[in-house]
Amino acid sequence: MIDRYSRKELRALWSDQRRYDTWLEVELAACTAMEREGTVPAGTAARVREKAGGKLNPARILEIEERTRHDVIAFLTHVEELAGADARWLHLGMTSSDVLDSSLGILLVAATDEILGGLDLLLAALKKRAEEHRHTAMMGRSHGIHAEPVTLGIVFAGFYAEARRNRRRLEAARAAIAVGKIAGAVGTYANVSPAVEKEALAALGLRAETVSTQVVQRDRHAELFGALALLGASVEKLAIQVRHWQRTEVGEAEEAFGKGQKGSSAMPHKKNPILSENLTGLARLLRGYAVPALENVALWHERDISHSSVERIAAPDATSLADFMLRRAAGLVDGLVVHSARMQKNLQLTGGLIFSEGVMLALVRTGLPRQTAYEIVQRSALRARDEGGDFKSLLSADPEVSSRLPAGALDGAFDLQHHLRHADRIIDRALSDEELP
Amino acid sequence: MIDRYSRKELRALWSDQRRYDTWLEVELAACTAMEREGTVPAGTAARVREKAGGKLNPARILEIEERTRHDVIAFLTHVEELAGADARWLHLGMTSSDVLDSSLGILLVAATDEILGGLDLLLAALKKRAEEHRHTAMMGRSHGIHAEPVTLGIVFAGFYAEARRNRRRLEAARAAIAVGKIAGAVGTYANVSPAVEKEALAALGLRAETVSTQVVQRDRHAELFGALALLGASVEKLAIQVRHWQRTEVGEAEEAFGKGQKGSSAMPHKKNPILSENLTGLARLLRGYAVPALENVALWHERDISHSSVERIAAPDATSLADFMLRRAAGLVDGLVVHSARMQKNLQLTGGLIFSEGVMLALVRTGLPRQTAYEIVQRSALRARDEGGDFKSLLSADPEVSSRLPAGALDGAFDLQHHLRHADRIIDRALSDEELP
Amino acid sequence: MIDRYSRKELRALWSDQRRYDTWLEVELAACTAMEREGTVPAGTAARVREKAGGKLNPARILEIEERTRHDVIAFLTHVEELAGADARWLHLGMTSSDVLDSSLGILLVAATDEILGGLDLLLAALKKRAEEHRHTAMMGRSHGIHAEPVTLGIVFAGFYAEARRNRRRLEAARAAIAVGKIAGAVGTYANVSPAVEKEALAALGLRAETVSTQVVQRDRHAELFGALALLGASVEKLAIQVRHWQRTEVGEAEEAFGKGQKGSSAMPHKKNPILSENLTGLARLLRGYAVPALENVALWHERDISHSSVERIAAPDATSLADFMLRRAAGLVDGLVVHSARMQKNLQLTGGLIFSEGVMLALVRTGLPRQTAYEIVQRSALRARDEGGDFKSLLSADPEVSSRLPAGALDGAFDLQHHLRHADRIIDRALSDEELP
Amino acid sequence: MIDRYSRKELRALWSDQRRYDTWLEVELAACTAMEREGTVPAGTAARVREKAGGKLNPARILEIEERTRHDVIAFLTHVEELAGADARWLHLGMTSSDVLDSSLGILLVAATDEILGGLDLLLAALKKRAEEHRHTAMMGRSHGIHAEPVTLGIVFAGFYAEARRNRRRLEAARAAIAVGKIAGAVGTYANVSPAVEKEALAALGLRAETVSTQVVQRDRHAELFGALALLGASVEKLAIQVRHWQRTEVGEAEEAFGKGQKGSSAMPHKKNPILSENLTGLARLLRGYAVPALENVALWHERDISHSSVERIAAPDATSLADFMLRRAAGLVDGLVVHSARMQKNLQLTGGLIFSEGVMLALVRTGLPRQTAYEIVQRSALRARDEGGDFKSLLSADPEVSSRLPAGALDGAFDLQHHLRHADRIIDRALSDEELP
Repeated sequence: MIDRYSRKELRALWSDQRRYDTWLEVELAACTAMEREGTVPAGTAARVREKAGGKLNPARILEIEERTRHDVIAFLTHVEELAGADARWLHLGMTSSDVLDSSLGILLVAATDEILGGLDLLLAALKKRAEEHRHTAMMGRSHGIHAEPVTLGIVFAGFYAEARRNRRRLEAARAAIAVGKIAGAVGTYANVSPAVEKEALAALGLRAETVSTQVVQRDRHAELFGALALLGASVEKLAIQVRHWQRTEVGEAEEAFGKGQKGSSAMPHKKNPILSENLTGLARLLRGYAVPALENVALWHERDISHSSVERIAAPDATSLADFMLRRAAGLVDGLVVHSARMQKNLQLTGGLIFSEGVMLALVRTGLPRQTAYEIVQRSALRARDEGGDFKSLLSADPEVSSRLPAGALDGAFDLQHHLRHADRIIDRALSDEELP
Repeated sequence: MIDRYSRKELRALWSDQRRYDTWLEVELAACTAMEREGTVPAGTAARVREKAGGKLNPARILEIEERTRHDVIAFLTHVEELAGADARWLHLGMTSSDVLDSSLGILLVAATDEILGGLDLLLAALKKRAEEHRHTAMMGRSHGIHAEPVTLGIVFAGFYAEARRNRRRLEAARAAIAVGKIAGAVGTYANVSPAVEKEALAALGLRAETVSTQVVQRDRHAELFGALALLGASVEKLAIQVRHWQRTEVGEAEEAFGKGQKGSSAMPHKKNPILSENLTGLARLLRGYAVPALENVALWHERDISHSSVERIAAPDATSLADFMLRRAAGLVDGLVVHSARMQKNLQLTGGLIFSEGVMLALVRTGLPRQTAYEIVQRSALRARDEGGDFKSLLSADPEVSSRLPAGALDGAFDLQHHLRHADRIIDRALSDEELP
Repeated sequence: MIDRYSRKELRALWSDQRRYDTWLEVELAACTAMEREGTVPAGTAARVREKAGGKLNPARILEIEERTRHDVIAFLTHVEELAGADARWLHLGMTSSDVLDSSLGILLVAATDEILGGLDLLLAALKKRAEEHRHTAMMGRSHGIHAEPVTLGIVFAGFYAEARRNRRRLEAARAAIAVGKIAGAVGTYANVSPAVEKEALAALGLRAETVSTQVVQRDRHAELFGALALLGASVEKLAIQVRHWQRTEVGEAEEAFGKGQKGSSAMPHKKNPILSENLTGLARLLRGYAVPALENVALWHERDISHSSVERIAAPDATSLADFMLRRAAGLVDGLVVHSARMQKNLQLTGGLIFSEGVMLALVRTGLPRQTAYEIVQRSALRARDEGGDFKSLLSADPEVSSRLPAGALDGAFDLQHHLRHADRIIDRALSDEELP
Repeated sequence: MIDRYSRKELRALWSDQRRYDTWLEVELAACTAMEREGTVPAGTAARVREKAGGKLNPARILEIEERTRHDVIAFLTHVEELAGADARWLHLGMTSSDVLDSSLGILLVAATDEILGGLDLLLAALKKRAEEHRHTAMMGRSHGIHAEPVTLGIVFAGFYAEARRNRRRLEAARAAIAVGKIAGAVGTYANVSPAVEKEALAALGLRAETVSTQVVQRDRHAELFGALALLGASVEKLAIQVRHWQRTEVGEAEEAFGKGQKGSSAMPHKKNPILSENLTGLARLLRGYAVPALENVALWHERDISHSSVERIAAPDATSLADFMLRRAAGLVDGLVVHSARMQKNLQLTGGLIFSEGVMLALVRTGLPRQTAYEIVQRSALRARDEGGDFKSLLSADPEVSSRLPAGALDGAFDLQHHLRHADRIIDRALSDEELP
């Protein structure tokens, strides 16, 4: 997690302080439940909270860990330093992973909520721009080649629909990860009761793992990292779209350029889509974290600790990168400078070639076999493209076309508005949120 | 897709024949909807079906494709060869991807249904073995080291619960992928109507893509490949568990060994967990297909065709491997030979060390600070472990223990049944399917 | 391995027939060495070769394997069927992996040699085009934005230099993989001698694994799959370059378009860069095979067989895809249609903005601080860009420029030939093969 | 990069301070070369170094970057603040990437040298332990099942040989990455000369990129990340070996356990192989960084900046993790506690079954067909295994064996020393470093 690519909220979330504070919350929730159950003296949790709550010193815990080489034992030793005798009632019948995994669940849920907040910002920006550009005609391209017209609103609506699918995936992953365990060394409740687990976890906003081993099962975490990687891929798609639009030769839209911003140290004329390129790279990193998360699933027997080092790095890094990406993407969409005049110009770049399908279909409707019609149209199209003539004129001059299509019929095939007549319907359908995302 | 690791059902599903037949189904469904709409003469689809249905010749299509270098055009040309003039009404206003992607949706749904069938076999096998071994005590291990007892039933129940989570993910992915499009070159319905798309896709068991470009959006496919990779990781976990059990030194369970089967060409004494090792390797391949699927998401503009080569290989391979793995895993669980006597023997291997936590907790309950109790117990434990003495005797001989715990209290901590008293509860909870998976 | 993306040479190489034939070669090489050593009767190998060589029946071996569930035992049984009593001298003191891994080494070396052949075709095509276009000026772009001029020859020379680096990596991987073992069940030569191994492997073109376990170590194979993935990434870079060039708005180069080829089933005007898009996708698959190959390294103890299923799929698929990609890439470069007139036109697209660095440097040389010069030039540049004026005229009209740079000095900064004066030097350096690749 | 998994040397190497200091070194090396060339006034570099060297303030640079949103321009502005008018001679004709990529080359070389240092520690530890345990017999295992004996020295020698192969790969990657560029905006030396580049880079310990675009080509970096991932996989293999050895049921070796160290917060009896498990997880992360590095290769045209965000995270993280892993692995090997008595005990665990191959081969030598001999031996072997009898006695009691093998011949097949007679030869070969690694 580096400052450059993370918000301070996420850095705080993954700080040592927050982690140890969360561990204490888990211990106290369990202790409170045990008090109610009668296995721990009433008032213990409250007394420990008074003496140790908000006073944990990460540096001291790390110092103790140097010696014990065990993080939770170091933490408990420190709590005992602060809270005295009452601390012996903590962690009763529990194993380290009861604390660690329940705490990880809490933190991952909090991180996912931040990410969902960012996703909502992106959704809002996409919706706004889709509404704004419902009828802004632009070239649709397949294979990088001009195909047929679309509207910019449709494009934004498409990203909106995809973002909603990512929201569904993230919500599912959030539910999967909102799980803890207080079930003892191998998950059998040998020295702790299921009732204590249920009550304590509920107080922490978590459900109990269905069947624990020593740990919460890692397919849950892999689902989250997978959802983040897929989210990242969708942001990358948006970023690559912007990078194409901003190309010198295309020029249809560009990133907002700040006051004082410099594009290149060597070339004063440049304005580069660096935010989008940055998002492209970050998406690669998110894919990179999904792979080790999948390898973390197959722990040995009731657990081995190989997942831990992966998660110490990937959990903060992947969540904070995803959070950062969404805020940046939302800002990118929000501030995107749209050059609709250039879009108009680009629509005309091929001299009407983009309407070739309509001509072909008009010929088919006159009774020509499809492949014959295709070849007739391709003939004029490739000539227009390679020799530079006007497509419609070439068609008119072709007796096989003119004998079948009177001038009016040909004009109809070249009508932009006809092409875009369903734009509102498409956009409404996407923005209405009625569809299963 | 190689014969060794695929079932014939999946090989049929991904055959050229089936693909072309499915393309024809999509064309006919669209044609039928257009007939109802009035844009195509009534009876066209029926006549084409009569002449071409069941008669498509993959070799002929590939031959035509050699020339056109375009698969759908080659297919349409072949249909025209078979069905004559009526064929010109096919594909009207459609683009190749309308056929290809709707067809891919149909095939992926069918493949996913096969996989779900395999998953249900695995679920059934796990449930049966969990019931059977509810109270079969075995050693629980963390870090490969004896920890505390579990039951084999709990272990199977854990795999059952995880398999149900994978079922949930696969169902979500199935819904995501059960999508097609008949929306034309760039998804704007320029020459085809939304009503035709809706009717045709419904007849094919699909929904319409919310916002199409030229194609169905690839985050949908990435979700499926991701779900398969995660499913594979869970199967790998099961396989690694079996491999550990079958180790010579552990010997708690082993794969069924067929009549005439040979373990090693050099060593006639061997029976190796080769099915489980095979599953471990196949899980790696599934992870390998998830990465390119994520890279497929960010297509350029209204599409580029870079996803196609990935899918031609990864769609058949990943789905057939997943299907194969589940059938193999189900058989593995079903036939697993359990050596419960060896489990008993292994439970006693450490001379009672595995009950150390109970002793420590008993000491804490007498009023000792946790860390003091920990150190008292560790002292005897490490002696027993390193010098081979009996743990309970060493504890009894330690005045700090005996002064606090009378013999009866010590016995209680060494009670296996007490450790496993919640086994039924855990198993019932998992098998009841009440929990959110 | 699918026909669409593999050459017949590679399909033959990875056929069952070739695999079993290679196994026999390994057995016979070992047998011959044992004859020389005196542990096997002289003439045995020759007699077995006469009776079984060229007569192995894959279907029969698979049939036997159905029963034994062990491939090498099935193979040996079949050889015994063909060769009779002499066959009992085969495989003496050997383990299956002696045959399998030595054979895999032979096949991977052969596949790598095919790939190297393809790489040499690509190198030759790149060299030819680099020579041809040494001085073909074209726009250089960073961030997709016009930067400063390059020549097409420099671009091809860059791909040439990168391909040579990939050749170096592949050669290293070939050496790493040209290794076998005939060292028995756990690599200790318990029942076979190091001398036999050395002689037999030398006859097969292999070195002996330095320290065998049951198998050749899998870091060797991972190196090869890694080299293929990196090779694929370089081909992808070339493919993406072509896709950008072929964009409608850029139009600087395009894939050769075959007679009769059709670009789109819906849009007769299209010529799409489908070969390049295909290469982009295949590169993703190669990355996908590199990951499981890395996971294959950490086998358990003297081996587990989890690597086998990965290799049965990834070895044929990754090598045949890489081979296919290189042949396709070589053809792509060879046939690439270059539109140098369009390159000229694009160079002028920004009205001279691409020379802004030269102007800034000229100002710095008059004594201005760099940042001041930068801001002066940026001012005119952004105006030219946003308001459409001519950059050089705007500069001339700026007193801060004109007071420092007389007209002649300004012209110098706008000189294309001056920019490209080192093109030959760069290209010569790359094509000379003098540099460490 | 987190403190827990990195050494302070690597943290310093990747600090902001070191990065900016290295940028300054690159600028000064270029400036010095330009002085010699005569394009910059003599003494400039020396004066800038005097005023700015060792005085760069990272916080101030970041502050300026807030405004310019360009890191190198911010850096240059800060240098100008410190060094005054002379600073305008810096960066002349250069582009940001000239500084960034040359600097990255320097830092990656330095990081690789640290990693090579760690690898040498591991090699030394492996060599020492291989010598020490040349003849320490232990069970060899395939599929986790007892196979035939090996020696611990052979095992260590195998890891040694593999580590040497990784050294070869890292050295190749180091050479590939020891490259910079000072070639201007698109690599054409438009405003800087090849001679300046050559001299400046030589002074920095780098070669010049063969053909630059705006940047050094990213296949070089991908080679390094790939080499690190493969190195990690080999360390993982060692770690998994240790984890198996330390299993309770195996007990053949274990990690050194520090004074005061605690194995489990719940179970005082435990000593867990946590270092090895940690290494297993870190290897997964290294695989995760190799994938985005491969995706970084295919930059657009003369460059896009998508690689940058990947490298800002992956370069420090992957190199510092690899460095950390090697030091930890070296310590692990060095301190590994070997239980040779337990190894002896485990060798006898199967009552001689592990010698079954020798018996079979002895039968073959009497003239029996291999498969018949195999089945005779397997018969007794499976009985011994399943019914617990002594293998050798069962064989003696089998008339088909006793009729062919007199008691002495049978004893020979059960001779451990005979099995291990080539141990020295294997170890010498590996440790001599004569083989191509």
